[in-house]
Amino acid sequence: MAEPAYDLVIRGGRVATASDVFEADVGIAGETIAAIGRNLPAGRREINARGKLVLPGGVDSHAHIEQLSAAGIMNADTFESATTSAAFGGTTSVISFAAQHVGMHLPQVVSDYHALARKGAVIDYAFHMIIADPTPETLAHDIPELVKEGHASIKIFMTYDRLKIDDEPLLDILVAARESGAMLCAHAENHGIIAWMVKRLLARGYTHPKYHSISHARFSEADAFNRLIGMAALVDQPIMIFHVSTAEGAKVIRQARGEGLKVFAETCPQYLFLTAEDLDKPGAEGAKWMCSPPPRTVADQDALWQALALGDLQTISSDHAPYRFDEAGKLRAGPNPNFKQVANGLPGLEARLPLLFDAMVSKGRLGLEKFVELTATAPAKIYNLHPRKGSIAIGADADIAIWDPAREVTLSDAMMHDLTGYTPFAGRKLRGWPVTVLSRGRVVVDDGKRMAGPGSGKFLARTGGEAAKPTGRMVADMDPETNFGAKLF
Amino acid sequence: MAEPAYDLVIRGGRVATASDVFEADVGIAGETIAAIGRNLPAGRREINARGKLVLPGGVDSHAHIEQLSAAGIMNADTFESATTSAAFGGTTSVISFAAQHVGMHLPQVVSDYHALARKGAVIDYAFHMIIADPTPETLAHDIPELVKEGHASIKIFMTYDRLKIDDEPLLDILVAARESGAMLCAHAENHGIIAWMVKRLLARGYTHPKYHSISHARFSEADAFNRLIGMAALVDQPIMIFHVSTAEGAKVIRQARGEGLKVFAETCPQYLFLTAEDLDKPGAEGAKWMCSPPPRTVADQDALWQALALGDLQTISSDHAPYRFDEAGKLRAGPNPNFKQVANGLPGLEARLPLLFDAMVSKGRLGLEKFVELTATAPAKIYNLHPRKGSIAIGADADIAIWDPAREVTLSDAMMHDLTGYTPFAGRKLRGWPVTVLSRGRVVVDDGKRMAGPGSGKFLARTGGEAAKPTGRMVADMDPETNFGAKLF
Amino acid sequence: MAEPAYDLVIRGGRVATASDVFEADVGIAGETIAAIGRNLPAGRREINARGKLVLPGGVDSHAHIEQLSAAGIMNADTFESATTSAAFGGTTSVISFAAQHVGMHLPQVVSDYHALARKGAVIDYAFHMIIADPTPETLAHDIPELVKEGHASIKIFMTYDRLKIDDEPLLDILVAARESGAMLCAHAENHGIIAWMVKRLLARGYTHPKYHSISHARFSEADAFNRLIGMAALVDQPIMIFHVSTAEGAKVIRQARGEGLKVFAETCPQYLFLTAEDLDKPGAEGAKWMCSPPPRTVADQDALWQALALGDLQTISSDHAPYRFDEAGKLRAGPNPNFKQVANGLPGLEARLPLLFDAMVSKGRLGLEKFVELTATAPAKIYNLHPRKGSIAIGADADIAIWDPAREVTLSDAMMHDLTGYTPFAGRKLRGWPVTVLSRGRVVVDDGKRMAGPGSGKFLARTGGEAAKPTGRMVADMDPETNFGAKLF
Amino acid sequence: MAEPAYDLVIRGGRVATASDVFEADVGIAGETIAAIGRNLPAGRREINARGKLVLPGGVDSHAHIEQLSAAGIMNADTFESATTSAAFGGTTSVISFAAQHVGMHLPQVVSDYHALARKGAVIDYAFHMIIADPTPETLAHDIPELVKEGHASIKIFMTYDRLKIDDEPLLDILVAARESGAMLCAHAENHGIIAWMVKRLLARGYTHPKYHSISHARFSEADAFNRLIGMAALVDQPIMIFHVSTAEGAKVIRQARGEGLKVFAETCPQYLFLTAEDLDKPGAEGAKWMCSPPPRTVADQDALWQALALGDLQTISSDHAPYRFDEAGKLRAGPNPNFKQVANGLPGLEARLPLLFDAMVSKGRLGLEKFVELTATAPAKIYNLHPRKGSIAIGADADIAIWDPAREVTLSDAMMHDLTGYTPFAGRKLRGWPVTVLSRGRVVVDDGKRMAGPGSGKFLARTGGEAAKPTGRMVADMDPETNFGAKLF
Repeated sequence: MAEPAYDLVIRGGRVATASDVFEADVGIAGETIAAIGRNLPAGRREINARGKLVLPGGVDSHAHIEQLSAAGIMNADTFESATTSAAFGGTTSVISFAAQHVGMHLPQVVSDYHALARKGAVIDYAFHMIIADPTPETLAHDIPELVKEGHASIKIFMTYDRLKIDDEPLLDILVAARESGAMLCAHAENHGIIAWMVKRLLARGYTHPKYHSISHARFSEADAFNRLIGMAALVDQPIMIFHVSTAEGAKVIRQARGEGLKVFAETCPQYLFLTAEDLDKPGAEGAKWMCSPPPRTVADQDALWQALALGDLQTISSDHAPYRFDEAGKLRAGPNPNFKQVANGLPGLEARLPLLFDAMVSKGRLGLEKFVELTATAPAKIYNLHPRKGSIAIGADADIAIWDPAREVTLSDAMMHDLTGYTPFAGRKLRGWPVTVLSRGRVVVDDGKRMAGPGSGKFLARTGGEAAKPTGRMVADMDPETNFGAKLF
Repeated sequence: MAEPAYDLVIRGGRVATASDVFEADVGIAGETIAAIGRNLPAGRREINARGKLVLPGGVDSHAHIEQLSAAGIMNADTFESATTSAAFGGTTSVISFAAQHVGMHLPQVVSDYHALARKGAVIDYAFHMIIADPTPETLAHDIPELVKEGHASIKIFMTYDRLKIDDEPLLDILVAARESGAMLCAHAENHGIIAWMVKRLLARGYTHPKYHSISHARFSEADAFNRLIGMAALVDQPIMIFHVSTAEGAKVIRQARGEGLKVFAETCPQYLFLTAEDLDKPGAEGAKWMCSPPPRTVADQDALWQALALGDLQTISSDHAPYRFDEAGKLRAGPNPNFKQVANGLPGLEARLPLLFDAMVSKGRLGLEKFVELTATAPAKIYNLHPRKGSIAIGADADIAIWDPAREVTLSDAMMHDLTGYTPFAGRKLRGWPVTVLSRGRVVVDDGKRMAGPGSGKFLARTGGEAAKPTGRMVADMDPETNFGAKLF
Repeated sequence: MAEPAYDLVIRGGRVATASDVFEADVGIAGETIAAIGRNLPAGRREINARGKLVLPGGVDSHAHIEQLSAAGIMNADTFESATTSAAFGGTTSVISFAAQHVGMHLPQVVSDYHALARKGAVIDYAFHMIIADPTPETLAHDIPELVKEGHASIKIFMTYDRLKIDDEPLLDILVAARESGAMLCAHAENHGIIAWMVKRLLARGYTHPKYHSISHARFSEADAFNRLIGMAALVDQPIMIFHVSTAEGAKVIRQARGEGLKVFAETCPQYLFLTAEDLDKPGAEGAKWMCSPPPRTVADQDALWQALALGDLQTISSDHAPYRFDEAGKLRAGPNPNFKQVANGLPGLEARLPLLFDAMVSKGRLGLEKFVELTATAPAKIYNLHPRKGSIAIGADADIAIWDPAREVTLSDAMMHDLTGYTPFAGRKLRGWPVTVLSRGRVVVDDGKRMAGPGSGKFLARTGGEAAKPTGRMVADMDPETNFGAKLF
Repeated sequence: MAEPAYDLVIRGGRVATASDVFEADVGIAGETIAAIGRNLPAGRREINARGKLVLPGGVDSHAHIEQLSAAGIMNADTFESATTSAAFGGTTSVISFAAQHVGMHLPQVVSDYHALARKGAVIDYAFHMIIADPTPETLAHDIPELVKEGHASIKIFMTYDRLKIDDEPLLDILVAARESGAMLCAHAENHGIIAWMVKRLLARGYTHPKYHSISHARFSEADAFNRLIGMAALVDQPIMIFHVSTAEGAKVIRQARGEGLKVFAETCPQYLFLTAEDLDKPGAEGAKWMCSPPPRTVADQDALWQALALGDLQTISSDHAPYRFDEAGKLRAGPNPNFKQVANGLPGLEARLPLLFDAMVSKGRLGLEKFVELTATAPAKIYNLHPRKGSIAIGADADIAIWDPAREVTLSDAMMHDLTGYTPFAGRKLRGWPVTVLSRGRVVVDDGKRMAGPGSGKFLARTGGEAAKPTGRMVADMDPETNFGAKLF
């Protein structure tokens, strides 16, 4: 008898890509997808997917894992807990952070996070390098070297006291990104406006967590987007704007894209499903819903959905930032902190896809192909993980989530697999759930059980890529034809 | 020995969808795609596609075939010649027109075109119904009946003396489309402005074909788009704007989409590769490049490419309108006609895909996946031919074009298979050519030879579909909450 | 003893121009203002204006007087009654219409209206020529001749069955205006949309006057503005858009002006003080508030005030169109007409200024200088009546309204001096009233009594003028540098 | 014989206000205008103005006089030289600066500048207070006190190392302005972008003065405008944006005003008449044309004229900043400084009006009334000097410039009366010149001679005023209805 052609066949499911949906078997050989078709021959193993959806595993391109905050708070998750949680939620690739603080040597930082991930990860991973200290050495040497090693994206913060990059060094970093071929990702909010709002709110006794949402004045987002986009255009460097929260912010992005600028943008479930009202709980409870930027209004949610539909925003990530609701996390300053004393961030690696599946597929907003595109294919393409990740395609890694579209689940703190201890989405009834999740052909999660060990995830080296390439167009100031011949690149 | 699993295997090519590109065999069983994979078992027949691209056959959603113009000129092609030409160019589905003139009974019109197509077509086809005479009977009875029979799209003209639909009847047609679930497609130019320009140009002796391009003043397009979009919004009916030619037109569309309106739009190769300068030939020669709207400027070409990149325009069709350059066609009024006497239109069914492949794939503008999307997947989706047409997907019709990406071809009049006698793109050197073309698993063209007989193409009935669904939002005038309770739908 | 320097001195009032407000005497010699100053020597006559405001008499640049509608309804006023009413309201110049119907000889029309005005007017007047029948003779001969005679403005209608000018003839008229140096004024609404709405509303039984406001769908205004502006830009002809009613319309104008186009615009008190709700009265009563375009919403009122503040709209006229609320006017079709059977129009010559004074001066919205500008100086400048009319300036006609800013008046039907029989503003309490009104130094109204006889008003010939001059810029279609050398002017 | 009614009569000139132009005598009694009229009785003195224009003296609302720069360079002028120069150019009121540096006590600063001006000024003056050190004492105590004393405007810099105010303190200053009723004026450029451009240009050896124009990248202006406007909207404080130089900057302002924000803006002759090309002179010569922001392009000039025409910009000031072209000024770092070592600024008090008169009146761009408005009336109104200053009106100060519209003058360094030693406009041929200039009825300049002594100018106390009043509208973040009840004012 002939050897089975496939190590594994997922049989009879409904397969979806960003372009198509069809009924087919999926044949896996080793770590990759070998065939998609009707009536594929038997595999060494078989998974019955009849009545199920066979989707590419999610790509979560924005998650903070085992990261020490600049304020000195260690986030609640290890790579093991975080990636386990991701896998339970249908996600099979995560881009986490190698976070430099001021004074830290960037290669060492990257090396340290590598070690943590290598030990714990159960799914594949990559790193964005957070630059908080753009020394000449970092800019001229470390960034190009590390990009060459596969870390082709940089993140900067335009706010937070210990992290923020002012406009002048930001231009240096944009040029360093450009010269090494890396994407520049940004947390873009106007720092001074937020600081002023915080000061004014606290001075008047408005200390409750809900005032956090006011302190990040709406304009602080649109302004920082506008500024960042203009600076990126000045040096012709593509950018990714993280976690868009306001209609005004989305409008700035649409405008810039319409002018041909290479501006990418993401939003997160917290901006699509939560509002500032969620922070309005008795006592410190609202702190659980505190993240930056904060959830806004229902009108903003609508604007963000519209921006996703139009392609103005291309990805939906979790911005997983797990701080426990106790003295090790959000209540470090005591049981009744003022909002400025509370660590900003929410867990989301696990709930991201089920929330979006319910909204987009079960309830029909934008549909299944767009769900796949926004949560897997587009981030894989933008961050240069595609064609290895992000789709059901021949030769791609067999990173697959099998969803039961009929399964109804009510989210609860207890069911989450990360170490945050709560989910801001507890109590929501969702329809559709990932029941079996594979990474490179291995079953990582099956029917509520984890099947893969810590350290089984692999590092995904990324270099080059279409998204991070400059457009080649120069603004007048930088164009030797109109700037008296100055060659500034 | 077991039966071969597949009737045909296309082996070793590089397969592309709108989402992914990968190396794989494609297995075909009967008329549909049964498997995509590495090392598929042998098929009853095999095609060696190593070094080739295996793409979905093109969907050309805008072509005039065997159509009598309202001015009484029969266009040069039969369904046989036109669809043969299409197939040679890699296109496997075409949406042609069932063109009512004033006084004609629409069901009879549709039936007549059915007969012509049934006899001649070598690839699959569908019809847009041109409405030139929106009688109460047509609106209330014929349109809904014919949509139910699979003709789920209507085309109207806002210009041309014998065809133009004024605003009031246009609203009637928009409502008829809405109530029967059809897409409304439009040739949108301001008739009065064009008529005035023609009058003024001719009166001053500017009769050369090149003045045709001036007579369709740029604003005639933006104005008609704006008006059509506003009227469609009034009755909440999705629309498809045909053949966008100007930057201003594209801007109007982007604006409308940004407001959440359901506006789709196409452009054509003539607006991406030609300019008004092409009409500036000695004598009547320029008439070969006359179409409506006319080709514009290089800046407009750039704006259209940008609009395609951003998704503001979703499809590229040919607007194939074949008038011979002789007394049966463009020179009917004699060898030196004034521009108003020349039939408007260009052939394009065959050249469309090679021109775009060369620009998008060989030269790299927007890339292979976007080429597939714009020329096959998106039109199939918008006109509700997907998932049957428009992609390489399991269960889809095996409509496949195998492209040799290295083949260099210089376009010439002689090599075209339609009956127009010339191509406006003659002399262009292109890289990339469709060498083998399949429709529903049958080889229609192979290595320069047609392999399928007239009448082998099938009618594609289309009803329903996502694109043609109203949004459900009402403008204030139509909303009983703000219009004194008037229920107008 | 020396002759008194002045025939009349208005003593001690507060004088206002569009630029300044100050306390001063105003000395009048003959028909013109001879001096403004403190402690002017005694005049032959004196008017004590202490505690009063001394303002330029209003210029009402849009009023229908003694005009036969195209539908055959004679409006209620004679020149005597209308101009008397205007004078009682503080207005001293009016631009009325010489209204051509189809088939009428324009010079005869103008001559006829001249005769009516000469007989009746108590204040000075000029005419806009309404063109409903742009024959070659009218365009090439009559318009230039009549403009030379002082009728330097043309009005056209884009809607109304018997009056509407389609796009092609409208371009002819724009060119005729350009070539004779006349301003082109327009009632700009999309006819087809309104016709369709009327048809649909009536067919569903929505016949009450309030549905008139719905039948003029909001987009019918913005569309017609957009179209008219684009056509005017095509031939580089300045335009005045009459009676802007919607926020969207105002936005189109702002956009056009920002692009450097010569677009002027007015609104009227009915769009600043009334809403569609005013039509919602029992029975036919709402017909009293019917005008075209209809009053809209409070949000539109705010947008119009904002547009006035920004200079996007430059004038506020009455659009006085007096139809009695009886069988001779609005109820000609019977006591319960459907809204389509009711003549459109409101009286406003008398109430215009008191309403605006109350809002702008007494309540403070925009202020006294802007009140003078919008109601007198700006229309005088745009229509080339300045410097003779529209300001308190040396050498200007002594057209002066002396206002008592403290006088409180409740508007009522009975107090109006026109023949309409009602005012749509009845019941409004206003603060500020014109107590004495002078035309060319003659007292026309004093303390509630008319002091001037019919026929004492004079015709104001207007030729040339800055506002009506083309900008000299050509769009690409019309520019020989980019249109293959075609000279189209 | 009776006492003459007037101390002075300016006889027979053509008087202009922002609203009107007419022939009249102007009678002056004491320091103010007492009468305007034809054939006024004889005055104690007479000036024959036949054939001349009688205009309000210019108000220059932005001039640096006798000011020590933060970099330690004393500017070249004293109050005597600067105001003399202003008067020779037809300007009769100037708003100069009381410039705080870090560490300085604001009341002392104001007092010091008072002393200088009191000693030297030959025309009337006021001060904007430059805030460089917003200590709590300055904000809470000094600003309100000084505003009450008549200094109702504050200026801040968003760039320059020693002066720049970051976003957080800028919000504090905006609130201080709001609470004391002062206008907030700003030099708005993005500091970080400029610093980065300077660094990059110098590092690559681009040191010539012309690179100054590149170092202030165009976006640094639009960005800072956008940010400042957004922050001002956050706290509902009116602002005046100084010296707009780019089309993009003007567009940001137009957008903001269209949204109802209280944003005022000025430009200066250097942005209307110079371009970056003017800096492209051999050696250090180009430094004479260096100011910040720098002159841009002809397209920007056109955009600024358009913005002035539309009212988007309301005033044209000189931004007089006199640095000599020698070792005491621009060449302090030596004869061949790099562009960063050169003091930024140009003289302009004297040339401002003649340049603008030539362009606007003699050449006809925008016309005489707009000339008066932009250079006198509007700044007087915005800064609350009106009705005392800025117009020819009864009761106003007799600040009058008598212009000879036919006089042709070629500007030269030698003819200027300030101490800068050069004018960047040398060599320009202008038509129209102020031949006699009066301040409060006193002749200050007559026929090329100064007639008034130092110290004869008076301080103009300004408090309150319409322009500086908040709109009363709150953004969502600041509105208790939408910010969880926080009262932040």
